[in-house]
Amino acid sequence: MIVSASAGRSRVAVIGVGMIGGSVAGALRAHGACEEVVGYSPAPDGERALELGLIDRLAASVSDAVEGAERVVIAAPIPAIPGVMRAMAPALRSDALITDCASSKRSVIAAAERELGPAFERFLPGHPIAGSERNGPDAARPELFQGKRWLFCPVNPTQAQWCETWRQLLGVTGARFSEIDPDLHDRVFAEVSHWPHALAFAMGAAIARGELADHAVNFAGAGLRDTSRIAASPAELWAGILLDNVGPVLESAGRFRAELDRMIDALERRDRSALVEILDTSSRWRRRIVD
Amino acid sequence: MIVSASAGRSRVAVIGVGMIGGSVAGALRAHGACEEVVGYSPAPDGERALELGLIDRLAASVSDAVEGAERVVIAAPIPAIPGVMRAMAPALRSDALITDCASSKRSVIAAAERELGPAFERFLPGHPIAGSERNGPDAARPELFQGKRWLFCPVNPTQAQWCETWRQLLGVTGARFSEIDPDLHDRVFAEVSHWPHALAFAMGAAIARGELADHAVNFAGAGLRDTSRIAASPAELWAGILLDNVGPVLESAGRFRAELDRMIDALERRDRSALVEILDTSSRWRRRIVD
Repeated sequence: MIVSASAGRSRVAVIGVGMIGGSVAGALRAHGACEEVVGYSPAPDGERALELGLIDRLAASVSDAVEGAERVVIAAPIPAIPGVMRAMAPALRSDALITDCASSKRSVIAAAERELGPAFERFLPGHPIAGSERNGPDAARPELFQGKRWLFCPVNPTQAQWCETWRQLLGVTGARFSEIDPDLHDRVFAEVSHWPHALAFAMGAAIARGELADHAVNFAGAGLRDTSRIAASPAELWAGILLDNVGPVLESAGRFRAELDRMIDALERRDRSALVEILDTSSRWRRRIVD
Repeated sequence: MIVSASAGRSRVAVIGVGMIGGSVAGALRAHGACEEVVGYSPAPDGERALELGLIDRLAASVSDAVEGAERVVIAAPIPAIPGVMRAMAPALRSDALITDCASSKRSVIAAAERELGPAFERFLPGHPIAGSERNGPDAARPELFQGKRWLFCPVNPTQAQWCETWRQLLGVTGARFSEIDPDLHDRVFAEVSHWPHALAFAMGAAIARGELADHAVNFAGAGLRDTSRIAASPAELWAGILLDNVGPVLESAGRFRAELDRMIDALERRDRSALVEILDTSSRWRRRIVD
């Protein structure tokens, strides 16, 4: 773990102090990685993050938060990010470095290019891969990123030069940093996160609307619990994520629907060998993931 | 926990000593619930169960196993059950009680009626709700059923009178016993287990066949791990389960596909409120399940 002296990085602003931003802020504070962590979230999350000791000071607004900050971490929900960038742009120090934590990168990069003005060059698109079905500052933990991956998606060499600087500051989170092309990032995360969430939500909604909904709560075993856990995720937050990365999400959806049609067809025809082929293809792939 | 004296129940036969049967056998042995637990599985599972100490004796065949046994627990894979019943019928004691552990009940009841002859009256359809993506005797644990539900599905009053007798013997597993109508059982388990498995397999196969398959292994986070865990389940076993309960499974599939179509339509139209409605319906239902 790289723990840097706080000198020269007196103030870090964290915009959005829910589960992700609150965990970043909490880790910076816990390790004394800077002199002051200023946070901002609309009420009541900001107050709660202050109560929980995740931040040193609660700012009154986005521009108040970034005022004088040498580093700015945007951890707001995706639909709020363009507005957050617009609000911060005039108040940013001319040498402030900015990163974000959103789980899709193309739309955030487009918003940054549009809203940040000259600070776009000092913006490094980022994505810490940690989450759960919970959210808000009460779900924040300074150790949330320990051992997890944290991706950076620079779109030009100017942005790329900040990777090492951010690694030094954020190293206290215990994350493992790497870089990935933003287009590939968005396709991969549609496949491994956004579409699986959509599927879990569709399964949950189908059960909820069916006449077996109460029995399903009663008889849920480990299988349903595991497959539906993320189907309890916050609806507004996930609608934002799915729509933000809707192109790659619909590509994943198309591949899934073709496979689903094959499976239902095999069931309707009682075609055991076609069914075994699908199940075996899945099983062999899944066994490559070590739990 | 009800621990009964072993007197009068000197021999219990367990046909199929994989994860489920091996765990039943192991629990009976661990608690001294009978004098002898005889097991049978085709090689190599039978030998392995003996090595692991799950059974007292390995029988040479199904009929050898049930010979002289006062209680018979069928824990074979679903497609094997009719053949197992046919093989045991002539060798059963005239007072032997029989139960099974299959996760669908209508087809097993039909097989029992066809194959067990007069012993059908002494057959109590059962279903211990415990499982994982693993299988075989190495996945068996005497404590597997601790706190889990164990359902009985008698189809007539004669069968129903055995519920209490089986509860007394199987109480050592720590399971919580209850009764449910077999038709309702099969519809509920299509909804909470069989179809969620099919969905996870379809998702796994779609990812496996896509060009992002390797990246998906690399970047799998908690969401994908949870939703796909059961997609690693054994293909042959699950093809058997899905086909065995194919009517209710296709009903669940139909409800799911209608919801999936609504979701994809909302994504294609970028209809945020339609999307939020689906996600929120799911989320409110899922939060009723306490993890």
